Amino acid sequence: MLDSAEQGLTLSDRAYETTLRHLRPALLKAHFALARSPRQVLVIVSGSDGAGKGELVHRFNEWLDPRAVATQAFWDHSDEEEERPHFWRFWKAMPGAGKVGIFFGSWYTRPIIDRVTKARRKREFVPELDRIVEFERMLAAGGVQVVKLWLHLTKDAQGRRLKELAKAGRLGPNDRAHFKAYDRFREVSERALEQTNHPAAPWHVVDATDRRHREVTCGKLVRAALESAVESSAAEAKAKRTRSKKPAPAPSPARAYAPGASLLDAVDLSQRLTVAAYEREMPRLQERLSRLAWAARDAHRATVLLFEGWDAAGKGSAIRRVTQAMDPRLYRVVGIAAPTEEERAQHYLWRFWRHVPRDGRITIFDRSWYGRVLVERVEGFAPVADWDRAYGEINAFERQLTDHGMALAKFWIHVSPAEQLKRFKERQRVAWKQHKITDEDWRNRKKMPAYREAVEEMLARCSPAEAPWTVVAGNDKRFARVQILRTVIERLERAL
Amino acid sequence: MLDSAEQGLTLSDRAYETTLRHLRPALLKAHFALARSPRQVLVIVSGSDGAGKGELVHRFNEWLDPRAVATQAFWDHSDEEEERPHFWRFWKAMPGAGKVGIFFGSWYTRPIIDRVTKARRKREFVPELDRIVEFERMLAAGGVQVVKLWLHLTKDAQGRRLKELAKAGRLGPNDRAHFKAYDRFREVSERALEQTNHPAAPWHVVDATDRRHREVTCGKLVRAALESAVESSAAEAKAKRTRSKKPAPAPSPARAYAPGASLLDAVDLSQRLTVAAYEREMPRLQERLSRLAWAARDAHRATVLLFEGWDAAGKGSAIRRVTQAMDPRLYRVVGIAAPTEEERAQHYLWRFWRHVPRDGRITIFDRSWYGRVLVERVEGFAPVADWDRAYGEINAFERQLTDHGMALAKFWIHVSPAEQLKRFKERQRVAWKQHKITDEDWRNRKKMPAYREAVEEMLARCSPAEAPWTVVAGNDKRFARVQILRTVIERLERAL
Repeated sequence: MLDSAEQGLTLSDRAYETTLRHLRPALLKAHFALARSPRQVLVIVSGSDGAGKGELVHRFNEWLDPRAVATQAFWDHSDEEEERPHFWRFWKAMPGAGKVGIFFGSWYTRPIIDRVTKARRKREFVPELDRIVEFERMLAAGGVQVVKLWLHLTKDAQGRRLKELAKAGRLGPNDRAHFKAYDRFREVSERALEQTNHPAAPWHVVDATDRRHREVTCGKLVRAALESAVESSAAEAKAKRTRSKKPAPAPSPARAYAPGASLLDAVDLSQRLTVAAYEREMPRLQERLSRLAWAARDAHRATVLLFEGWDAAGKGSAIRRVTQAMDPRLYRVVGIAAPTEEERAQHYLWRFWRHVPRDGRITIFDRSWYGRVLVERVEGFAPVADWDRAYGEINAFERQLTDHGMALAKFWIHVSPAEQLKRFKERQRVAWKQHKITDEDWRNRKKMPAYREAVEEMLARCSPAEAPWTVVAGNDKRFARVQILRTVIERLERAL
Repeated sequence: MLDSAEQGLTLSDRAYETTLRHLRPALLKAHFALARSPRQVLVIVSGSDGAGKGELVHRFNEWLDPRAVATQAFWDHSDEEEERPHFWRFWKAMPGAGKVGIFFGSWYTRPIIDRVTKARRKREFVPELDRIVEFERMLAAGGVQVVKLWLHLTKDAQGRRLKELAKAGRLGPNDRAHFKAYDRFREVSERALEQTNHPAAPWHVVDATDRRHREVTCGKLVRAALESAVESSAAEAKAKRTRSKKPAPAPSPARAYAPGASLLDAVDLSQRLTVAAYEREMPRLQERLSRLAWAARDAHRATVLLFEGWDAAGKGSAIRRVTQAMDPRLYRVVGIAAPTEEERAQHYLWRFWRHVPRDGRITIFDRSWYGRVLVERVEGFAPVADWDRAYGEINAFERQLTDHGMALAKFWIHVSPAEQLKRFKERQRVAWKQHKITDEDWRNRKKMPAYREAVEEMLARCSPAEAPWTVVAGNDKRFARVQILRTVIERLERAL
């Protein structure tokens, strides 16, 4: 792919000025239109050292409306970043709706450099590139237009350019070392570009020898991306309007999942634990968990626990039995309710990424990203295409956590409809429990069959070997709590 | 103050249960009322090791509505935190409107431990405590109710308690070492408590020997704080309603500042630079700045540049001349527009704290926290009491930046009204500048006298020796840009 950008194309000063006279107002116009849309455009600026990437970033900041541009450089990493999965730092910097994000460096930087220096083996490099494609596909499907620019220089051109930069005191700290490895860089980059050149986010390789040529070329590419983002946003809005006002509950599309034996029915809800057994068992389990939480910290091992379940299944009280065993310095409980404005302006997974724990810490999610395939599916908040795609996206997200070495446990607390009814009524009776029961709970209860179908599909499609669901028999709270603590302990012991 | 909590108070199981039957619904009721108000309550849990701080945190999470509680432990620090002023980590964790924040550890933890281990000298300790008082006063004035709990144990009680914890595997990593230094801890804590016991955020020292006694005592204190926050919020809302609907521009209150000679009039706006001089000078300055930006990174020295000025004064183009000289990996430009929902739910300084650069990096603010004493003052968005207090709060904020070793430069770009008019008209003519001129610019222009008064007062009251304003003669853009670059260079050279 790089050959195509070695023709030494140039642009005269005059042609540059003439083009800009049209390009700049067009860029601004498209940017303002984008600002009123729910779309994001992400421009990735990568390529050879000395190819003018920094200058190009400056130019975009000059040409676009600076108030709606977020520029972010990815370079050296803080320990907060090192201690989380690789993609965390990019999620953190993701532009919100209507914004243009300019990434100077990206998820390509580290894999390529590591491969050049042989810090990463080929058999790690190839799957890493696949993960990148998967990630970019997910962004594109979520409304993020990704523009990937690769500014290319021949070896001669790079040599000349670095000399100029050195004279002006503008040489980056690694530029010289990278130049020595030019051939290796070219080979590794070519490999990366080829494997990650997919329709949802194709590469644009730009001949970067001439400043005017590369700037105008990149400017035009960004303009096209802005306009296409605005267009598809308008088309989507139109499609939404023409759909019936109140859509019937979305029918399941044709898909890989074939509903088989019920995973919920397989749970023996009659399982119980006596008070005596519980009072003997619980303190022992909590003590063991307490020691494990400290051991996980010493081993720099992060943990994610996630709780879902029917209303009144006892999520809150189960979580408290877990947290009671842990030093508050080690864990955080994140309750998932309606998203905030900043969260709504982002991909739906963004608000979960922001709470991913660093090494040695524990995050407990009280409800989670599974809302996408539960409440958003059943209530019709997300179109079928969105929630159906979410199973794969969620599996990919969790794989990033487990690949980083995290322990992950996911609990669905199951109760029978009769037990739920009993608890609803009890909540209405006890003064400090009344806030826990609302009209919505009663409404949800009526939709149980639809929820049940969604739960079954979720359990079946999102239980890979590294991140299986644990369905908890919740009719007896004591039994459920002990089962949960045992599972957390078992998961932590396996991870350590 | 600690003596008062050494009486070994206890509570019977029965009295505990009876109290809780009233306390828990009352706590929840107050918490729900708070959730509907714009107030925050911040509970600081501190005190002796082994005094049950962790248990108490768990209890609050049980008693309150967990969806509106944010618990945060302050303990070991990431490099992201180490490389910013001490208060940054607390700002980052601040609960939003309607929320209860529970801080396990706080801004007291580090000063006290450092003083106990003599890592910090007494003559640093005392002013640090003063800064804490200043900070807490500011939070209180901004609507944050701070509840400071100190759980106290006698030496004997602590010894017994640590033995129990060791047996249960729940001893924290430093507990033993701290116990050895019990007497010293007591002395230093007593000193800290006395100096920081002020009416805006008084200390509550709690006898922590008996679990039931300490939990009920702390529960009641939090209840009182919640109720008082809700009450004062209601009182404030009422006062707002009874004020005239459209208040006249707020009159300046009696205050220390006496308008003297005009600082704006003192600027010689006739200063100009020829094209030839500019083209000779600018590249030289940019080269110097480029080297300095790298040197600042190597020296782990952070920089904050802040730009304010009349509409069309040339802030944007001046910022671009600065950023062109710097590697995009080193700086971020933060444009300040209307706050987001998450930002509106916080103290007005929160959204600036979140952008404070780490060591070695540069943040450039295009508009800034001075909006509080400019647009918010002139347009009446903030009541007089709020913006009048802001001068001191802003000085304290900037002192924290400079105390941390940051280079800070603040620019007010001044242009004459005639020059502004000329530029407004030009913006209307040029296609890619039209977006820069709106009806609001014309409205603001009419309010120039009021803005002028606000600017003069800001320049006079917020120019301490470590963080003075630079008023830039902006009628000639070339002159202004060169003046700005020179100032940035001079400030960086002084800091390095």
